[in-house]
Amino acid sequence: MDRLITGEPVGKQEFGAAEPGLREALIRAQEDLAERDFPVLILLGGPDFTGCENVYELLHEWFDARYLRGEAFGAGTDVERARPWLWRYWRLLPPRGSVGVHLRGWATAAVSRRVLGEWDDERLEREIRHLRRLEEQLVADGALLLKFWLHVPKKVLKKRLQSAVEKDSWRIAAEEEKVHEVYDKARKIVERVLAGTDGPHAPWTVVDGSDRRFRDLSVARHIAGQLRARLDRPASTVRELPPERLRADPHTVLDQLDLGQELDGDAYDRRLDELRDRISDLHREAHARGIGAVFAFEGWDAAGKGGAIRRLTRAMDATKYKVFPVAAPNERERRQHWLWRFWHRLPRDGQIAVFDRSWYGRVLVERVEGFARRDEWERAYADIEDFEGQLVDHGYAVAKFFLHISADEQRRRFEQRQRVAYKRYKITPEDWRNRERWHDYEVAIDEMVARTSGAVRWQVVPANDKRHARIAVLEAVCRAYEGRLDGRRKK
Amino acid sequence: MDRLITGEPVGKQEFGAAEPGLREALIRAQEDLAERDFPVLILLGGPDFTGCENVYELLHEWFDARYLRGEAFGAGTDVERARPWLWRYWRLLPPRGSVGVHLRGWATAAVSRRVLGEWDDERLEREIRHLRRLEEQLVADGALLLKFWLHVPKKVLKKRLQSAVEKDSWRIAAEEEKVHEVYDKARKIVERVLAGTDGPHAPWTVVDGSDRRFRDLSVARHIAGQLRARLDRPASTVRELPPERLRADPHTVLDQLDLGQELDGDAYDRRLDELRDRISDLHREAHARGIGAVFAFEGWDAAGKGGAIRRLTRAMDATKYKVFPVAAPNERERRQHWLWRFWHRLPRDGQIAVFDRSWYGRVLVERVEGFARRDEWERAYADIEDFEGQLVDHGYAVAKFFLHISADEQRRRFEQRQRVAYKRYKITPEDWRNRERWHDYEVAIDEMVARTSGAVRWQVVPANDKRHARIAVLEAVCRAYEGRLDGRRKK
Repeated sequence: MDRLITGEPVGKQEFGAAEPGLREALIRAQEDLAERDFPVLILLGGPDFTGCENVYELLHEWFDARYLRGEAFGAGTDVERARPWLWRYWRLLPPRGSVGVHLRGWATAAVSRRVLGEWDDERLEREIRHLRRLEEQLVADGALLLKFWLHVPKKVLKKRLQSAVEKDSWRIAAEEEKVHEVYDKARKIVERVLAGTDGPHAPWTVVDGSDRRFRDLSVARHIAGQLRARLDRPASTVRELPPERLRADPHTVLDQLDLGQELDGDAYDRRLDELRDRISDLHREAHARGIGAVFAFEGWDAAGKGGAIRRLTRAMDATKYKVFPVAAPNERERRQHWLWRFWHRLPRDGQIAVFDRSWYGRVLVERVEGFARRDEWERAYADIEDFEGQLVDHGYAVAKFFLHISADEQRRRFEQRQRVAYKRYKITPEDWRNRERWHDYEVAIDEMVARTSGAVRWQVVPANDKRHARIAVLEAVCRAYEGRLDGRRKK
Repeated sequence: MDRLITGEPVGKQEFGAAEPGLREALIRAQEDLAERDFPVLILLGGPDFTGCENVYELLHEWFDARYLRGEAFGAGTDVERARPWLWRYWRLLPPRGSVGVHLRGWATAAVSRRVLGEWDDERLEREIRHLRRLEEQLVADGALLLKFWLHVPKKVLKKRLQSAVEKDSWRIAAEEEKVHEVYDKARKIVERVLAGTDGPHAPWTVVDGSDRRFRDLSVARHIAGQLRARLDRPASTVRELPPERLRADPHTVLDQLDLGQELDGDAYDRRLDELRDRISDLHREAHARGIGAVFAFEGWDAAGKGGAIRRLTRAMDATKYKVFPVAAPNERERRQHWLWRFWHRLPRDGQIAVFDRSWYGRVLVERVEGFARRDEWERAYADIEDFEGQLVDHGYAVAKFFLHISADEQRRRFEQRQRVAYKRYKITPEDWRNRERWHDYEVAIDEMVARTSGAVRWQVVPANDKRHARIAVLEAVCRAYEGRLDGRRKK
């Protein structure tokens, strides 16, 4: 549970005596952290706005500012507002080995939105659950979260605001005065948000900010102490799960699929034209109404993802969509939570993101090839459900596809690709090797479909016949758009 | 000069016969490019909007789309509009070893702005010079620029637009219809932009788009041919400049500085308070008026940059400024033009970017330590002048500082830092080694000040007395703001 830190005012001398040791501890911890594989995120929020800014500046002085990732969150740009509200925080998470400080981060934003009436109670509760999941995810991924709520009694806040108006008027934004006005109303909401996001994984530390030196010392000591404790903890206390035992003869969702479905050339051309026109209308209407879209494509190698995606994007205006081919994460991406690179790529409202392979790599290739530990990919199902839930909540049209072909059909396509010079690059020895794991992939695909169908339904598409598959994909895209355009916006 | 490609319509069979070889050539070239250290940028512009989109899609099909950086530029977001107009193009330049395609890139934007009356003739001429410089810079840095202007006769354009309205109405944005309306007016502007940005370093290729297959083959052949020619060129045809010979006993700008200037504690406190209030007012006014600011800090190690920056930022609202500590470029940054990482960090209008070290590293540490070749840092002076000219043109308040201390004072500060545990991290063996190059740095600083004082004046600040230096910095910031707030906006 949260921890309340209060105490007697600290004199100038006492502060001066404590400062050198504390600064040294912070610098040393920061240096040690650089060699480690987890990030530290310090959240500063609370009704004491000036206090938060002062502590934010103090941390920039006491840590090595060159390696501190400070982010002060204000009203936000249109680019930020046109995406799920947590996008701006995800984007600015500190990478492993570094300290980030978020001034007025997500908890403050949740309080503000409820206070200002942007959210009702139901929405607040839903978002608190998302916040809780977010913090749990980050901590499960190794992050050390240090959350401070700087509290001042109403009387002190009032006095401080008055004196600020006189001496320091620029610090008082309109919002701050409002916060003071609605102090009592806000208090209940604050308590709800703090309680809802508190827990042993990321407890709140509430600091009485009446006395500045006491506040500075308390925050710095708490950070230095927690950081050192974490650094001294043995690197791996991860609960090692036993290796999984594959079911010998699974019946998978893929078995039920009729791979014999075909479409002749004429019917295909006709239907393709119809669907192209329909999608071109739909994506323009969605753009006009500020509705974005996220389409994710998975499938066996050579299942025809690229071709299906091209049929889709040809129906769209090039300024409105972006195709993201997803391969192994790069160095920068590996230094973040695994979902970071997908959050990063979410489209703004009205725009379309097409993922050629997606976040499902975590529970497919990374699982099967052992690139992710079992506890990591086991966790990913819930991470994904929460992620997709937020996409839907935000109002995107969302669809996800798995293009299924038989192992024989795959071999045929591999061989064909190797005969055509300009297609040869698509086939690597790795693709042939992957075929040996066909069964492992089947098991992984089956579990994926079973465990990630809560927020967004899977479209498992028989793709032995390319024409059939492309039409099925375009039809599902139309349905996703139509469902979204007809429905009420949840936002 | 530009090259006009026209020819007879291409039949289906002829196209089919040419396609496999061409696609193979493109794929091979793309693979080979991945091992090389230069980027390829393909620009697609011209009145044939549909043609541009078709070619854009074709390139995504014929190249390996996973490694193609396609960018389709539309109207732009507020985040883009609130920065120098070239920012959005700089940000999306392809890294070395990759192919980028910009659909409706900078040339198209320049034409549009003049056609729509956003720019007058004078502004157009100025921006053409910036564009020319930009392309020269990129090419000097190794880039291969392939610029296509897809032209169609007015009659064909008209017919195509009509048929598009019937079959394909979604492709016709309001802007496109306008382009048709103003075809004749635009024609003159197009000719001006093409002529002004044409040259042997990056010639325009004007393609007659009347026949689609002819157009597709012509563009693809030109790309494949140019790319292969460039790949086959020996890696280093860089004109090696002879190593520089340092003047034996230079009188530098630093010699003229009176390092004895001091300020006593009381005067300092008083003046600091005044300036803090002044800056807090100024930065708020600038924010309200949408005026951004760029402040760059250079100086000897331990000259007091960090302390001066903190005195500045303490007067500012944390949501309005961002401090960028500049160290050696990282892997991602090294794959771009050296100025890219600074363009990337330009603040939006109303915001403030403070650079703790800056783009001047190119002509200081990179020159002195040999991290940049002589031809590279020699080129940088002009790159910088052009860059800063654009900052001023855009309307930022800009100031740049060099904090100067004596070699004796530096030694004193190094020794002091080593005595204080929490400051020790600031001193590395490298810092001591750098002292041996004091004279080389003096020469580099002198030349830097002489050659980069055209767009923005240097503030060379005597900093043996920290109090004096901090006040001088804050005063110069005030002057930069005041000059900007009083002046008319050039934009």
